[in-house]
Amino acid sequence: MNRLKEKIRDIPDFPKPGIIFKDITPLIKDPATLKLAVHQLLHPFLGMEITAVAGMEARGFIFGSLIAWELGLPFIPLRKPGKLPYNVHSISYDLEYGSATLEAHTDAFIASDRVLLIDDLLATGGTAKASCELIEKLGASVVACAFVVELDFLEGRKKLSDYQVHSLLHY
Amino acid sequence: MNRLKEKIRDIPDFPKPGIIFKDITPLIKDPATLKLAVHQLLHPFLGMEITAVAGMEARGFIFGSLIAWELGLPFIPLRKPGKLPYNVHSISYDLEYGSATLEAHTDAFIASDRVLLIDDLLATGGTAKASCELIEKLGASVVACAFVVELDFLEGRKKLSDYQVHSLLHY
Repeated sequence: MNRLKEKIRDIPDFPKPGIIFKDITPLIKDPATLKLAVHQLLHPFLGMEITAVAGMEARGFIFGSLIAWELGLPFIPLRKPGKLPYNVHSISYDLEYGSATLEAHTDAFIASDRVLLIDDLLATGGTAKASCELIEKLGASVVACAFVVELDFLEGRKKLSDYQVHSLLHY
Repeated sequence: MNRLKEKIRDIPDFPKPGIIFKDITPLIKDPATLKLAVHQLLHPFLGMEITAVAGMEARGFIFGSLIAWELGLPFIPLRKPGKLPYNVHSISYDLEYGSATLEAHTDAFIASDRVLLIDDLLATGGTAKASCELIEKLGASVVACAFVVELDFLEGRKKLSDYQVHSLLHY
């Protein structure tokens, strides 16, 4: 079995019946496997001109900040409403039931920024697509999106067809 | 002026009138200064026997995971209710108005774990104290707590008198 997959735990019926949640806490608890995951995540982008790394609250903060650290680049948090204290731009997007909003500081990026977006999970792609639009609204470009886990059957990748998409593990 | 303090931005009246919020986003956006902060945060603990690093959702995930990474130790997330998918222990604690709850997976620690707790801010100490109690409830020991910013006038350190407390910046 794939060394990374061994550290992803299936949790049946979370957050609701019928869903098998991919729990990444065993992975972040194992330093050697986390190192492998972070380096595999950033590897395709080593030769590319990236100037900033963005990550979504909250698990995206873990992988996003580690990848920014390893690449020596700024880390930009995309947050839930009301959490960022300075002037923000926000974007709302539809979820299966209801909607959600993400915010970023208006001075988070500069116009020439070429951004790598990081999250732990690509599911339907709604959050990732909204994040890309928020980054673009702030004047920067999204170069690529990288995820630890991709749920292929939800076809989230289709929503991100304008960007390079890199996922470590497919289910 | 202190190199780190230059990257902390004052936001008046956030989250409510009369409060000056210490915004750490300029710090995490500057790789050289972030490197300095992370290394200054972990420096006192290099000679100590620490076996795990815990961080509170959400900004604690950024500094906690970077410090765990640099020390080569497991990172354990302490989360808001309903976010962790496996069996959890939880702890509730009082805030100025109302209360809050933190959760950790029941298998997050082993009994011999010696934990370093990380957050960006030490204010009243309520969240940090509850985090220490949650870690202890799970059978591990808290060795020390480290914060980027400490608001001295709120005397949060008094609540943490059982632990070594290390803060980079005092206001």
